Amino acid sequence: MKTLQEMSRQELEELHSELAAQFEEIKAEGLKLDMSRGKPAPEQLDTAMPLLDVLNSESDLKTESGVDCRNYGVMDGIPEVKRLIAQMLETKPENVIVDGNASLSLMFDTVSHSITHGVCGSTPWCKLDKVKFLCPAPGYDRHFKVTEYFGIEMITVPMTKDGPDMDLVEKYVKEDAAVKGIWCVPKYSNPQGYTYSDETVKRFAALESAAEDFRIYWDNAYCIHDLYEDRRDVLLEILSECERAGHPDMVFEFASTSKISFAGAGISAVASSAKNLEWFKKAMTVQTIGPDKINQLRHARYYRDKEGLRTQMMKNSALIRPKFSLVLDTLEKELGGLGIGEWTNPLGGYFISFDAPEGCAKAIVAKCKEGGMVLTGAGATYPYGIDPKDSNIRIAPSYPSLEEMKEATKLFVLCVKLVSIEKILKEKK
Amino acid sequence: MKTLQEMSRQELEELHSELAAQFEEIKAEGLKLDMSRGKPAPEQLDTAMPLLDVLNSESDLKTESGVDCRNYGVMDGIPEVKRLIAQMLETKPENVIVDGNASLSLMFDTVSHSITHGVCGSTPWCKLDKVKFLCPAPGYDRHFKVTEYFGIEMITVPMTKDGPDMDLVEKYVKEDAAVKGIWCVPKYSNPQGYTYSDETVKRFAALESAAEDFRIYWDNAYCIHDLYEDRRDVLLEILSECERAGHPDMVFEFASTSKISFAGAGISAVASSAKNLEWFKKAMTVQTIGPDKINQLRHARYYRDKEGLRTQMMKNSALIRPKFSLVLDTLEKELGGLGIGEWTNPLGGYFISFDAPEGCAKAIVAKCKEGGMVLTGAGATYPYGIDPKDSNIRIAPSYPSLEEMKEATKLFVLCVKLVSIEKILKEKK
Repeated sequence: MKTLQEMSRQELEELHSELAAQFEEIKAEGLKLDMSRGKPAPEQLDTAMPLLDVLNSESDLKTESGVDCRNYGVMDGIPEVKRLIAQMLETKPENVIVDGNASLSLMFDTVSHSITHGVCGSTPWCKLDKVKFLCPAPGYDRHFKVTEYFGIEMITVPMTKDGPDMDLVEKYVKEDAAVKGIWCVPKYSNPQGYTYSDETVKRFAALESAAEDFRIYWDNAYCIHDLYEDRRDVLLEILSECERAGHPDMVFEFASTSKISFAGAGISAVASSAKNLEWFKKAMTVQTIGPDKINQLRHARYYRDKEGLRTQMMKNSALIRPKFSLVLDTLEKELGGLGIGEWTNPLGGYFISFDAPEGCAKAIVAKCKEGGMVLTGAGATYPYGIDPKDSNIRIAPSYPSLEEMKEATKLFVLCVKLVSIEKILKEKK
Repeated sequence: MKTLQEMSRQELEELHSELAAQFEEIKAEGLKLDMSRGKPAPEQLDTAMPLLDVLNSESDLKTESGVDCRNYGVMDGIPEVKRLIAQMLETKPENVIVDGNASLSLMFDTVSHSITHGVCGSTPWCKLDKVKFLCPAPGYDRHFKVTEYFGIEMITVPMTKDGPDMDLVEKYVKEDAAVKGIWCVPKYSNPQGYTYSDETVKRFAALESAAEDFRIYWDNAYCIHDLYEDRRDVLLEILSECERAGHPDMVFEFASTSKISFAGAGISAVASSAKNLEWFKKAMTVQTIGPDKINQLRHARYYRDKEGLRTQMMKNSALIRPKFSLVLDTLEKELGGLGIGEWTNPLGGYFISFDAPEGCAKAIVAKCKEGGMVLTGAGATYPYGIDPKDSNIRIAPSYPSLEEMKEATKLFVLCVKLVSIEKILKEKK
């Protein structure tokens, strides 16, 4: 089989006109597909519906410690939900604060508090000339949006299969006191689905930082989000690694049940050292009257423990797995060997990362849109929305139905081929 | 009847020893009373329990606009809950953002966003040498904590029965560009239960400010929290007043259902002009994936409209009213005519404000604690926790049972008398 690069001009032109005709056919169908966000599908949310039966007007709404969940109070989460989340994150309940429905808010607030008040007594970042964050990329667009919102300079660090390029991370963190943080999705990374190797985690824990208030923002969003039961990535637990390395305060870990129970009505958590949590609670005491404890109780009583969460995740993955398979099979079948794309094959998480030929990502996303499908904007996986190679595209297969996914993937590979051929033809001129 | 001041030294000493004996008796009972916070009582929360039956695993969780409440999305609240809250606040749904469970968080975030980003394009407050807020006092301690947390200088403005001293407010706002805000609880104010008069509201709406980013922080926490059905205060609607006065962007109004449905698991809202809400949403888009829409749907379907909310409030006030009556009757019976205290008699809200003789509040609160009852810390109702006259005590009758309230009030008047007599005796020396 020839790669497209090896084809003659004529072969390419013939192929292009054939594919263009197919594209016009699809376009005429007036599709409305959305593979832009890592949203759970309705069927997936259906599997969590019994959660809504746990509490009703007859229920005793007291926590195991005797607190009435309906009333004010309890800043850091009710005991049973702290235990649940601690199990999920393989840490101790005292290391955990459980909050409202969005871990993104906890991340935003952590950065915001640092801007206005500094971290554990350090100079407020708003008083500094320059604050920088390291951004392993491709990465999660909403992380980058937080740092961009606060005017924090973002430094791209390349991702590898084992995590961020740690030589670079170590160098930046050690040499530049303006580097105050790094965004990480350590397990089933967004969008590549890579899991940081043991060595990477250990190197993170051992980081020597020029800034006393440097922190790792460890967004463990996909901690138990495995696609397969027999094959799953294992991530070293960062809090204990940091403690062991003599840096107990270096990590803020974040997580939520957004992709376990309900995306819009789950619970979120931050895990860290006693000192960091004390700092965080100082702001919380002023900011809130406490989280929604009834929803926390609902989650704690329904899932009970890590096993309960795993059972939920098996229901979820049973629905997501076929969609991933479909995309991967189609990519392999339609693009394999053509030399116009590489993609990841993760064991968990919500995304497949696709690298198109350089300079083609934007055009492919635009072409897909023309054909009736919204993808995550090209570049979104990089700081400031600028992918220097214009190559990375995030594929989010979770939301559409399997039937829609077939259409979507067909359209996607078609657009990849069309845009790639156009690029090659242009270069051959 | 003699006032205590008119009594002879001997009469006072005899009375004191008699009261001191009563105090020791009560103390020996080992009471554990709490009148410190405006918390709903369990019986009151019981009346909202049917809210938990509205949604179950069989429910259709789509909004009237067809959005799946279980999933991500919808930044500013689902349509039916925006309509509900708009009715409660007598404004239009498009003026409302409905969020999570704590209006305090919305207030904190509004100030926080102003610190880091300025208001609608103004200079971020963290870049200014000095930022000041006007604080009508006695007022709500948590408001003062927010401004104190951010290092904002607080200027006390005296409260009157008609609202803050508007001559002073107008002067400060007009003359000092560092004055960026004023905290208001305009209806059934915390702790006095005063409602701003029409003239006060109109003068607020007409404020000429030196700072372009001056805003009124209008915490309408007790907007429908009337104690009586036949007698209630009426507050002019501030957003339309401001619009009429040519200052459409001058107000952020806050509210929640914390004291309607569940204190810990209600919904909160901010109401303002299109321009202000646009500014607020710019931060929200970065900060959150959207509020808990399922809890919003629960509230919208259960309460439906203002009538539904009123029905709930009648159940609540039926339980709170006797507690207020008990406190007021006891105060009148035990302290009336003695010249050692003044108190308010509000038609709604959660508090009775008690003014002890100057220099006695702290001692009374300490004495009550000794006797087994926690009151809001003396001074808490003033900026920086400092009541210049050491006189104001906030009484929160909602939480204890009627039986406990009897004990609590008995203990309270006893402590007021004891401390006042001690003061008079000291002065007579």
